[in-house]
Amino acid sequence: MTDKRELRIGLIGSGFMGKAHVFGYATAVKVFDLPARITLHTVADISAEAANRAARALGFAHATDDWRVMVTNPEIDVINITAPNALHKDMALAAIAAGKHVYCEKPLAPTAAEALEMTQAAEAARLKTQVGFNYLCNPMLQLARDMIEAGELGEIRGYRGLHAEDFMVDAQGPWTFRHDPAGGGALADIGSHALATAEFLCGPITRIMGDCVTMIAERPDGYGGRKPVEVDDLARAFLRFASGATGSVEGNWIATGRKMQHDFEVYGTKGALAFSQERFNELHFYSNDDTPGRHGFRRIEAGPAHPPYGNFCVAPGHQIGFNDLKAIEVAGYVNAIVGDAGEPFNFRNGLRIQRLVEAIQQSAREERWLEI
Amino acid sequence: MTDKRELRIGLIGSGFMGKAHVFGYATAVKVFDLPARITLHTVADISAEAANRAARALGFAHATDDWRVMVTNPEIDVINITAPNALHKDMALAAIAAGKHVYCEKPLAPTAAEALEMTQAAEAARLKTQVGFNYLCNPMLQLARDMIEAGELGEIRGYRGLHAEDFMVDAQGPWTFRHDPAGGGALADIGSHALATAEFLCGPITRIMGDCVTMIAERPDGYGGRKPVEVDDLARAFLRFASGATGSVEGNWIATGRKMQHDFEVYGTKGALAFSQERFNELHFYSNDDTPGRHGFRRIEAGPAHPPYGNFCVAPGHQIGFNDLKAIEVAGYVNAIVGDAGEPFNFRNGLRIQRLVEAIQQSAREERWLEI
Amino acid sequence: MTDKRELRIGLIGSGFMGKAHVFGYATAVKVFDLPARITLHTVADISAEAANRAARALGFAHATDDWRVMVTNPEIDVINITAPNALHKDMALAAIAAGKHVYCEKPLAPTAAEALEMTQAAEAARLKTQVGFNYLCNPMLQLARDMIEAGELGEIRGYRGLHAEDFMVDAQGPWTFRHDPAGGGALADIGSHALATAEFLCGPITRIMGDCVTMIAERPDGYGGRKPVEVDDLARAFLRFASGATGSVEGNWIATGRKMQHDFEVYGTKGALAFSQERFNELHFYSNDDTPGRHGFRRIEAGPAHPPYGNFCVAPGHQIGFNDLKAIEVAGYVNAIVGDAGEPFNFRNGLRIQRLVEAIQQSAREERWLEI
Amino acid sequence: MTDKRELRIGLIGSGFMGKAHVFGYATAVKVFDLPARITLHTVADISAEAANRAARALGFAHATDDWRVMVTNPEIDVINITAPNALHKDMALAAIAAGKHVYCEKPLAPTAAEALEMTQAAEAARLKTQVGFNYLCNPMLQLARDMIEAGELGEIRGYRGLHAEDFMVDAQGPWTFRHDPAGGGALADIGSHALATAEFLCGPITRIMGDCVTMIAERPDGYGGRKPVEVDDLARAFLRFASGATGSVEGNWIATGRKMQHDFEVYGTKGALAFSQERFNELHFYSNDDTPGRHGFRRIEAGPAHPPYGNFCVAPGHQIGFNDLKAIEVAGYVNAIVGDAGEPFNFRNGLRIQRLVEAIQQSAREERWLEI
Repeated sequence: MTDKRELRIGLIGSGFMGKAHVFGYATAVKVFDLPARITLHTVADISAEAANRAARALGFAHATDDWRVMVTNPEIDVINITAPNALHKDMALAAIAAGKHVYCEKPLAPTAAEALEMTQAAEAARLKTQVGFNYLCNPMLQLARDMIEAGELGEIRGYRGLHAEDFMVDAQGPWTFRHDPAGGGALADIGSHALATAEFLCGPITRIMGDCVTMIAERPDGYGGRKPVEVDDLARAFLRFASGATGSVEGNWIATGRKMQHDFEVYGTKGALAFSQERFNELHFYSNDDTPGRHGFRRIEAGPAHPPYGNFCVAPGHQIGFNDLKAIEVAGYVNAIVGDAGEPFNFRNGLRIQRLVEAIQQSAREERWLEI
Repeated sequence: MTDKRELRIGLIGSGFMGKAHVFGYATAVKVFDLPARITLHTVADISAEAANRAARALGFAHATDDWRVMVTNPEIDVINITAPNALHKDMALAAIAAGKHVYCEKPLAPTAAEALEMTQAAEAARLKTQVGFNYLCNPMLQLARDMIEAGELGEIRGYRGLHAEDFMVDAQGPWTFRHDPAGGGALADIGSHALATAEFLCGPITRIMGDCVTMIAERPDGYGGRKPVEVDDLARAFLRFASGATGSVEGNWIATGRKMQHDFEVYGTKGALAFSQERFNELHFYSNDDTPGRHGFRRIEAGPAHPPYGNFCVAPGHQIGFNDLKAIEVAGYVNAIVGDAGEPFNFRNGLRIQRLVEAIQQSAREERWLEI
Repeated sequence: MTDKRELRIGLIGSGFMGKAHVFGYATAVKVFDLPARITLHTVADISAEAANRAARALGFAHATDDWRVMVTNPEIDVINITAPNALHKDMALAAIAAGKHVYCEKPLAPTAAEALEMTQAAEAARLKTQVGFNYLCNPMLQLARDMIEAGELGEIRGYRGLHAEDFMVDAQGPWTFRHDPAGGGALADIGSHALATAEFLCGPITRIMGDCVTMIAERPDGYGGRKPVEVDDLARAFLRFASGATGSVEGNWIATGRKMQHDFEVYGTKGALAFSQERFNELHFYSNDDTPGRHGFRRIEAGPAHPPYGNFCVAPGHQIGFNDLKAIEVAGYVNAIVGDAGEPFNFRNGLRIQRLVEAIQQSAREERWLEI
Repeated sequence: MTDKRELRIGLIGSGFMGKAHVFGYATAVKVFDLPARITLHTVADISAEAANRAARALGFAHATDDWRVMVTNPEIDVINITAPNALHKDMALAAIAAGKHVYCEKPLAPTAAEALEMTQAAEAARLKTQVGFNYLCNPMLQLARDMIEAGELGEIRGYRGLHAEDFMVDAQGPWTFRHDPAGGGALADIGSHALATAEFLCGPITRIMGDCVTMIAERPDGYGGRKPVEVDDLARAFLRFASGATGSVEGNWIATGRKMQHDFEVYGTKGALAFSQERFNELHFYSNDDTPGRHGFRRIEAGPAHPPYGNFCVAPGHQIGFNDLKAIEVAGYVNAIVGDAGEPFNFRNGLRIQRLVEAIQQSAREERWLEI
């Protein structure tokens, strides 16, 4: 163990996603045989108090309220960015300039232009990057992709994807950074997951027709007034894939009752898959090859046959959780930095999603199909 | 009983839908207190032999291979048309000219123009008409509509509808009348159900953007050759409703593994509904008004509280079947002819669906949004 | 058609089950190619008024308040008994004495002794009998049995059966004939269905250990007082099958929230089946023979591959309803009377269930295992 | 952080459950604000090589092949026992004698007599103990218990519990320690979970009737021969609770296709709950108080309203995994050792389960009801 290289982590932000990163590291070092030791070096937050509290709670050795100082600290190898969207670019560019690997939460940046700048900087510096599209780390999504690639569904013809939640359903909920036209909206925030899954499974999207809708036109501004909302509350798109398949996606944060409806169905000439993140340890598979009279969607439960589930549990059916997805994400990234594995989902992949998001937004505004 | 008016039925076609009509009548007369006696007078089919066989099997007193004669028979009151789509107009116009009420399977006609002609003829003659959108007859759909109208979901914001089956998934399946550009295609054939349900629940659609896709470009012509297919195998649309809600629908007959995925989700400010025809005796309801920590989609099972379920069974949970939906459809129509009930889904309603179908097709061709 | 033999029906009782019989006949004559014409001759009920009303509503030619007269009417061939349990024996014996075939609702009689008397009378008279265990008529139950017999599950090892509803959950619900110690109780009333299904699938039960529980010790007597309840509100049993398999069943009419939980799971050396009457057009099948990593319970939807579903609908996934089960039951009986088919579930089968019920009751009282 | 007390862990065994303990600690220290620092001090395994490998993989500072030495090490505070069942007693007694707190995997011991000895030793020494009934740590089980205690279901009448898996379904699978009559069998191994959940929800069981079945009479002994199996492959019991409710449980390790069917249904006078560990982030709740026509089992998804879910994720619907249950278990134990919280499930609780298991086994052998 002692001969392993050390990766020292600097984390910016300690909210929902900051915690998820830490939980991911904590689990990953136990569950996987990582090629590096992980040290939680410093956490940066908006105040010294918040940072200190986070350091204590999450187990970082140091705390700071100045991320700019942290990203240049020579004792740190990797910068994890979980601050709001609008800050991603400055943080990432500073970290890259200081020679750090950067692991950034999604969306990568408010605009594709910024995401491109970040991507090019990282590539020029030959640093390893990661964007947190954690749902892709699910063994059942990997299984779905493997099955598609192996031809178990035949040629893919149709795709229907979705990411719907209801956390913005209350019109009295306040205006937040997620409503900022620069990078905000349901499509950028969660519809982006649906796009990532669509390409993860079916390959590149080549053409797109978007439909973006604002249903709640203004929200309390937190100062007793109201602020107009210009971003979409729900967005839809028709898709064309390079493979010849066609599909659709929806991103929706006013889907009353839905907490995690990251779902898809994919139809091929020989079989089909259906999946819901609401029960993400299951994949439903229909095969035309089944015996007549015995056809049906079968509910495959996650188990050791679906790597890396077996790292978490040797027995099937026990189920992994959301934070375990993050551990898988972390492990993939560490292997990319230290080992010779490819980056699972790097800035260029994140940029790609950003471009798709913007294409859908532009398509919706201009009411016409766009080539990607 | 004897003092009831008699309705004498002439049926054209004795296939899937012809049988369903007869099963519907047989059940309706027992289950409902219909205001008329039903007599199965004559069945017409493509040959005398087929017609005779159908008469024996289904219980018609007479059989004929000439529907033109039948529709003018003064002993017949109602003409049921279950022949292929392309023949609907001639049959309906002839029946209307002879003063018959007409009950026509969907789609009403290959084109909206023809459907309009049929509608105007029926209205001018003050005859009662019906088009067979049987899924709307489900007590759980009626419940969904009642709940929406009563405001149990609050203001409706989003809708997602679907009708997907897989009966055309095999590229070696032969070219049939369903592939005829005049009125064929997945959208017209089954996507029309999704459109009917969308308007049934959310009211008029005002604007539409379509996406129609042909995945199987040619099919065996039955004579050893191949015939090009120009109709859609799957179609999608973005929707705007007069209410301010937005939505989407899909019609798809190459959805491998799906037998009857006539599904929808509808999201309001206060609640949501989810439904699948795969389990059509259930409606899933989420209410924001539930106690905190006790929220969840609840699975409402069809029962006597959901008319007219109670006519079929006094106990909840026993379930009605597809043919029972047809019996409800029949009963509604008989009440419209004889009683003073409105027509549940008349030619004008059928015309409406036809227009929506054509608007989606045109929108897809022209790649632009269309007003309805 | 005219050369078919006629079967003239006399029905006793016109409540829930009386109606279900009539709906069953109405559908059966259309859906199946029955070897006989069915005539609804006479309905008997407790008053002339009730009987007349039923005749009008259900389509019987005659009505009577004297079932004793009806059962001797030479114009009637078959007597359908849907009156309360306690009356079954007298009615059936009178009908048998008059040479009628008898179709009796379950349970066959309050006691096995009475059921035996009825069975012997019918057998001595060489008349065809039927007891209404309608859930067995489900194509998916037939599929389950066929799969077991064909060895698709391997050797059967374990069985878990259930019939739970909640119609007696309210302690203020009045005392009814279902609470009469002579033949009443949850086990006799609905647990009997679970027993019938258990033997239908796994063959004869040879040994039994019962547990019968009265949870609601008294109920309103309808006259302002209260009446003690001695029958079981829920009953359980351990089972041994002649095959070597073991199992359990439960009958429960105070299962809050359950409307039709007639469920089972059956486990074999090679596969398993899971079923719920709550979704009775589905059967869930697990096969060890599936490809590794692709195992899972598959949801088989009822379709034409599962006779006699195809008689109701040529397309899969459309679903049959409860009254359709009754139509299948009717058809089986008509074929047994007129054709050369065996009786699907005759008095001897009904007697068998009665014996199992009594054995469980006795076992529960004596707190010991009993041989059957 | 530095002022926190340190708890130094010695782990015996590094298989499935040993790993789960370590994963539990790793997550617990991040997710919860534990009142102690956790140090993974030493891992003991059957060989020095295995122990060293485990220490490296799991992050222990030391390794040993002699657990007897480890348990007396003054640098260690807590001994975690995840070795086979038969060794639990010696290990625990030695650890207790050395003044260590003991956290033992279930079942606590092969016999209740041994479990009693262990319990008494721990209690006499005033040490804190824990037995690993991890399924009880699920927030949704805690919710179920809270709802029952708060009277949301009314008075509990009926219970149906189950723990079924299929890992012993193959008759060619070898004889293992789980088949040892001393403490082995499906009931002791996994049925014990069903018993723990039954009492967790419904309180003490007072009377029991058992049914234990051996279906696979012999298994390969690993040396080319075959060894008889005397333990149960599946076991059932009828239950009486002190509360007046009645119920049943089943433990089954030959339930083909089932990977984690730890399920229950509980019926009260006012409501009901249904749960399956196959989807353990959900609890299904039926309330009689719902509006007529809107009744139904509602699917409550785990969220921050169900502690301690919120420690893992601030958003509902994201789901926790099996290892997270272990983290909750760990946290409860640490709080009991260091803080003033009660022991969540101590040796006395483990002894209780052992007694229930033995009572069922004895009842099955003697074929009679037993008081507990």
